[in-house]
Amino acid sequence: MRIDDLPTPALLVDAGALDHNIDVMAAARTGPGLRPHVKAFKSTALARYVADRGGHRSFCCATLKEMEGMARAGLGDDLLLANETLDADRLSALVGTGARTTVAVDSPATVEVAAAAHAEVLVDVDVGLPRCGCPPEEAGPLADLARSAGLTVRGVMGYEGHLVGNPDRAARADGVAASMALLRAAHSDVGGGLTSAGGTGTYDLHDWADEVQAGSYLLMDTHYAQLGLPFRQALSVLSTVVSRSPKGWAVADAGLKSFGMDHGNPTLPDFKVLFCSDEHTTFVPGDGGALPAVGDKVRFLPAHVDPTVAL
Amino acid sequence: MRIDDLPTPALLVDAGALDHNIDVMAAARTGPGLRPHVKAFKSTALARYVADRGGHRSFCCATLKEMEGMARAGLGDDLLLANETLDADRLSALVGTGARTTVAVDSPATVEVAAAAHAEVLVDVDVGLPRCGCPPEEAGPLADLARSAGLTVRGVMGYEGHLVGNPDRAARADGVAASMALLRAAHSDVGGGLTSAGGTGTYDLHDWADEVQAGSYLLMDTHYAQLGLPFRQALSVLSTVVSRSPKGWAVADAGLKSFGMDHGNPTLPDFKVLFCSDEHTTFVPGDGGALPAVGDKVRFLPAHVDPTVAL
Repeated sequence: MRIDDLPTPALLVDAGALDHNIDVMAAARTGPGLRPHVKAFKSTALARYVADRGGHRSFCCATLKEMEGMARAGLGDDLLLANETLDADRLSALVGTGARTTVAVDSPATVEVAAAAHAEVLVDVDVGLPRCGCPPEEAGPLADLARSAGLTVRGVMGYEGHLVGNPDRAARADGVAASMALLRAAHSDVGGGLTSAGGTGTYDLHDWADEVQAGSYLLMDTHYAQLGLPFRQALSVLSTVVSRSPKGWAVADAGLKSFGMDHGNPTLPDFKVLFCSDEHTTFVPGDGGALPAVGDKVRFLPAHVDPTVAL
Repeated sequence: MRIDDLPTPALLVDAGALDHNIDVMAAARTGPGLRPHVKAFKSTALARYVADRGGHRSFCCATLKEMEGMARAGLGDDLLLANETLDADRLSALVGTGARTTVAVDSPATVEVAAAAHAEVLVDVDVGLPRCGCPPEEAGPLADLARSAGLTVRGVMGYEGHLVGNPDRAARADGVAASMALLRAAHSDVGGGLTSAGGTGTYDLHDWADEVQAGSYLLMDTHYAQLGLPFRQALSVLSTVVSRSPKGWAVADAGLKSFGMDHGNPTLPDFKVLFCSDEHTTFVPGDGGALPAVGDKVRFLPAHVDPTVAL
């Protein structure tokens, strides 16, 4: 099938950019040095490709649904739910598939769920992002609680998500150092052989953590592109121009229901995006150039790859 | 199944609020006076419920996929694609199902597609929203072109989407009058027995258009709620608290991939939402009250119902 014959809107992945991104990352974070984050691409076919080409066999996920998909696809060598869950039944069923299943815990309630499901655990530590993770000083007692419940505590994780998008590289580096000082302190109390941290924005700033959890690097988005990382934009949304006004704008058939909007409008090279409706994006020429004709195809670059893929 | 046993995040519809909304709308816009917009709820079960309880048998959709779903569900008495399409093959197949299929056209290219697929058409007129729709003075010639191609031209549609969200009711009323003056002029050139306009925000401000295209009224969202309309919030997202920090925040398991974010963060009554990540929302007490415990369920009200339902 030719690209122009695809029903629109359609997600396109540029194979050359994808390979480039996998290779650059695999050179920086070899094999188990990277735990690719499935939430950013939500495709077991892509996960398998990353495993084969990049040599990474351990993955992390944001939801039990993603974990179940990876297990079913035979990619369950070492799956980490980098997130807390209270759903013991579903976690139990996942462990029952034979996939190696580790979950983040940050409270007695989540330890209890992991124990009921016989999952392994990683203690999730708050290293500065106001989200999940226990205070560093509570990590040791939580690990003790988990071990007393019969659990294998593999180590610690801490996600410095408050700084992965900072465009100032030196500030990112300082932030990583501060966050990893907290995680290191927690790790000395927790023990275990695994330390896990990071994301695409800080992938090359970690010299202590065993593994980096990065996913956006694979397909990239315009938000991460502002950081000057060596990854290329591999994802675009193919769209058909369905209307053109003599007043100077055109309208394409991809909108709020195709793009993740939390980081703003998508980008259309050479044009200026005015706004997105549910199923439309209205745009004008960027520099007084010509508008495309009705029926022409255009390719938008999404601002935030994760929810765009989810849509 | 009890609500608290649902896997989260889960979309909940309040049956009492739903019935209220259907009844209030059906009293204001009886039978064919309303063409419910499927894009706002994307469920054929809900569409059938609206048809049965509200007495509306004609529907409009934003995509061919929604049209196909309605036709398959036996709800194809009178389906309008209130949008332009260039996909003649798919439109043809839809017409072939026997569903009465009307499409919006605003250019010779879209007329050509409708002719190839033997669909009926409504001329889409620009009444002030910079999106689809031809200028009013081009509507007549476009109708002539369509008729010369053998098409049935049912009339005109014009969506005053630039003002449906204006919180000032008098301003909305003035805007509707101005937009409908444009649509009326186009209709006198186009002819045909059908005039279609409007949305939830202007449903009771139309005294000329035969039918109003409203969908959000059914489930509502916090954005439309600001208009003081007589519809109740029927949709919420049930979520589990997965983490709570001694620093004073809690985290629930619904985020960017559950909510439409283009109109801002979701609302959690009695709390203040700080930010949404892909699969998390961090919130704090609204007035110094207590945080829920890990494992508790909370219900978020989405800011924009359409993309929330799509997710």
